[in-house]
Amino acid sequence: QDATIKVGGRVMLDYTIADLDTPDSSIRDSEVRRARLFASGTYGSSVKYKFEFNHSTGGGIELTDGYVQFVPKDSKFKVKVGHFKTHNSLEEETSSRFISTIERGAFTDAFELNRRVGVSVNVSGSNYGIDVGAFGTNVETESGPDEGYAFAGRGYYNPIKVDDTLVHLGASWRYREQGDSQSDLRYRQRPYTHVAPDRIVNTGRFADSDNFYGAEVAVLKGNMWAAGEYALLSANGSGANDDADFSGGYMEAGIMFGGRKAYKGGKFDRPKVDNPIGEGGMGALALVARYDTIDLQDGPYLGKLDTIVLGADWWATKQTRFALNYFNVDAENGSAKSGNGVVGRLSFDF
Amino acid sequence: QDATIKVGGRVMLDYTIADLDTPDSSIRDSEVRRARLFASGTYGSSVKYKFEFNHSTGGGIELTDGYVQFVPKDSKFKVKVGHFKTHNSLEEETSSRFISTIERGAFTDAFELNRRVGVSVNVSGSNYGIDVGAFGTNVETESGPDEGYAFAGRGYYNPIKVDDTLVHLGASWRYREQGDSQSDLRYRQRPYTHVAPDRIVNTGRFADSDNFYGAEVAVLKGNMWAAGEYALLSANGSGANDDADFSGGYMEAGIMFGGRKAYKGGKFDRPKVDNPIGEGGMGALALVARYDTIDLQDGPYLGKLDTIVLGADWWATKQTRFALNYFNVDAENGSAKSGNGVVGRLSFDF
Amino acid sequence: QDATIKVGGRVMLDYTIADLDTPDSSIRDSEVRRARLFASGTYGSSVKYKFEFNHSTGGGIELTDGYVQFVPKDSKFKVKVGHFKTHNSLEEETSSRFISTIERGAFTDAFELNRRVGVSVNVSGSNYGIDVGAFGTNVETESGPDEGYAFAGRGYYNPIKVDDTLVHLGASWRYREQGDSQSDLRYRQRPYTHVAPDRIVNTGRFADSDNFYGAEVAVLKGNMWAAGEYALLSANGSGANDDADFSGGYMEAGIMFGGRKAYKGGKFDRPKVDNPIGEGGMGALALVARYDTIDLQDGPYLGKLDTIVLGADWWATKQTRFALNYFNVDAENGSAKSGNGVVGRLSFDF
Repeated sequence: QDATIKVGGRVMLDYTIADLDTPDSSIRDSEVRRARLFASGTYGSSVKYKFEFNHSTGGGIELTDGYVQFVPKDSKFKVKVGHFKTHNSLEEETSSRFISTIERGAFTDAFELNRRVGVSVNVSGSNYGIDVGAFGTNVETESGPDEGYAFAGRGYYNPIKVDDTLVHLGASWRYREQGDSQSDLRYRQRPYTHVAPDRIVNTGRFADSDNFYGAEVAVLKGNMWAAGEYALLSANGSGANDDADFSGGYMEAGIMFGGRKAYKGGKFDRPKVDNPIGEGGMGALALVARYDTIDLQDGPYLGKLDTIVLGADWWATKQTRFALNYFNVDAENGSAKSGNGVVGRLSFDF
Repeated sequence: QDATIKVGGRVMLDYTIADLDTPDSSIRDSEVRRARLFASGTYGSSVKYKFEFNHSTGGGIELTDGYVQFVPKDSKFKVKVGHFKTHNSLEEETSSRFISTIERGAFTDAFELNRRVGVSVNVSGSNYGIDVGAFGTNVETESGPDEGYAFAGRGYYNPIKVDDTLVHLGASWRYREQGDSQSDLRYRQRPYTHVAPDRIVNTGRFADSDNFYGAEVAVLKGNMWAAGEYALLSANGSGANDDADFSGGYMEAGIMFGGRKAYKGGKFDRPKVDNPIGEGGMGALALVARYDTIDLQDGPYLGKLDTIVLGADWWATKQTRFALNYFNVDAENGSAKSGNGVVGRLSFDF
Repeated sequence: QDATIKVGGRVMLDYTIADLDTPDSSIRDSEVRRARLFASGTYGSSVKYKFEFNHSTGGGIELTDGYVQFVPKDSKFKVKVGHFKTHNSLEEETSSRFISTIERGAFTDAFELNRRVGVSVNVSGSNYGIDVGAFGTNVETESGPDEGYAFAGRGYYNPIKVDDTLVHLGASWRYREQGDSQSDLRYRQRPYTHVAPDRIVNTGRFADSDNFYGAEVAVLKGNMWAAGEYALLSANGSGANDDADFSGGYMEAGIMFGGRKAYKGGKFDRPKVDNPIGEGGMGALALVARYDTIDLQDGPYLGKLDTIVLGADWWATKQTRFALNYFNVDAENGSAKSGNGVVGRLSFDF
């Protein structure tokens, strides 16, 4: 009954050419967006584990997933203990390898969906799943001896799940509270590209707890898909600071030639590529258009960001992706007024 | 005659809830205590290697073990070259996966037992072993161009080694000297939990060399065990600083239900778990009580720390451990007078 | 058509004992020169990948190689996309595991040959090879939003390639330009050992672009070899700074007892060891002598460094190397006048 082990990883290298206006600045920059190694496997028949390191430019190394999961036979329940993502958002739950654009929806960063140490219970069937968990903080944060906690839950349901059609409906919630030695919460986001030198919108720090509410819908039909999410964030100001309600979301539609986007267990999965390169084929081509918005304006807090993304991805194999995204951002009360550019990514995993 | 390779690792996630008194402070904190990946294997029939990276919260990445070992056929002698622990202390030699409490004896940190680059020779038989080595410094220290060195040796003997009874006796020594560009040595320790924001006792820097002497005893009988160590540290003050003699040690007793603590080659080994979870069993439960003390008071130097630890460990499988330790510390001339709390740990390896 | 995966790595631990004169200083220091883990493999029949992390003392972690290579069947052309070395210099292209001395030629660091994100095309036959590439910067540099770029190309030819004789001729070029948010280029080098606290020669920062031209020759005959390289660097001063022309190169000759140095595809490869230790043999012994020079003096810029290296390597197995280098450096207009010492290295890979 020794552990089994599978080793793998991912590399994402980005290059951005972009310009921001008023004030003017230009970006010509590469980075390691993610470079990860993982080991995963099982102990006997009902315990699974996963352990993953991530490195990105300027970021040293950090533990991402690090958990043990109990999967009892003849039971619908699973229990996860360790470090993993709180259960929120279709796109946050989807692996960065399989999201439709190069970056996730602006609200996922702005509202700080992240990994935390905790315990969660999962119940799932063929067309639904529910996760509920209790969490401390991200294990890599060093915000001092007294850190906060969070609770989160998510449910999804597939009202249609037939041969070439799938409908996904989902909703999630998270409550989090900062500890005494942690700074107040703030809400901010970059002008799409991760190498942007600054956040273009930023409320500053003011809250000591907040509630996140998210709704999700996705439809896959043949080689086409559409998806959207909407999120509300209700922040509780610390001390004399005002409370605030923020929101965000995105809508996207896409099509894939020579393959199709895939979905499994409440999130997007590795796409199918009919004829990968080298096997007589040329891989698959995905096209996607997305509109994304976050509104961080309420009372004394300022910042609104609209982002349009047009993307083309060449999946040379199902594990080798060249992505190209054109983006256009438009900000109110931000550090710049607007910007646009292209981001290219080489993404491969193994 | 290519290299063979085995890849593995360990993850230890800790959560501490504790309070220190006079002055009052509270701890509610998680951390990655250890996250490691290793590769080990052989070149042909008489050369072994090991290479291991460790990451912990706030600690970047560091090489832990990195050595080649020559194991000639038909010889009692082995030679190790590279980066590994000096040969000191039963508990320091025991893997952090298999120690009885969540943290090792206070003296092992206070007297800075650690890994160093060096060469060592081992002679061993079925019931004894001797290691003698010459060392530079830890390869990760960046204390400038002129670093110090160390010598260390350890021997152990098993006067009884029968079916269900084992007795371990051991002794070790280390001499170390700081280099011209290194700071003076100091002796200090945390109030048990590794996330404590400060060392509760600390002599300050004053010595340029020291001798460590350690004695070890352990008894395993059926599913019970007891162990203890005692250490003397004789520090040579630099310049006009006084010399000093410090001491430390611990005693523990424990019992394991559904399994037993194991021992192999002069240190504790992976425990036996009779019926791991998932194979119709519920794993094993270990209970342990420990008294630990260090006395860093001599002449002008101050600091004394007593620690009591009560621990309960659930070994779900032999590689999946949930540990819970209650601790109570009592300090003289420290940054706080006392403290107590609980530390929980998820530990898994693969 | 899942990915295949091979995991491996290397460890190099160095210890230096050396003295520099005028001003006097001494070095007694160990370090992790390189500790690497890689994963490499294929996707189907015509896509290869490689992903490698490196850690060295004081250096956190960094992505070294991270690329995908397309190797179409029935084609002489290969295309590489990702992060890898620009195509320059026989010794820079040769793995650090297989270079003849402990450190590479002084010009390879002084002229900053390095890895960069880019695309390159390779054409090769049994006795020649050409690589041409376009590059951004090293992905780990964080020199701000506006980074530079480079172009590089290299060709080699083997006029003789028979049983026990091989002749290598090679030439390469690189042009690079700094981005607006990057500092000016500078040219500098250590007194051989990598743990030297300072660069002994250093022009200071003055250039915003440069051209590198390199010539290579190597001869392998039985168990002996000789090799040499010569490089010119033509720097374009930024603003009112003067332009400058620098040069560097080395010559070496060596012999291996019980094995032979190997060569493959335009660079040195893993040596043959006839009777590795443990298989009735004692491994192989290589002896090498090298003269190395860089001249960084032109107009207002100063610094000239001559280095002599005498090396003895014991290859216990073809993957286990103990290297010992005596070095003697002689500098003009440097931070010290001269120095000498020994560097020992344990190098193993798997």
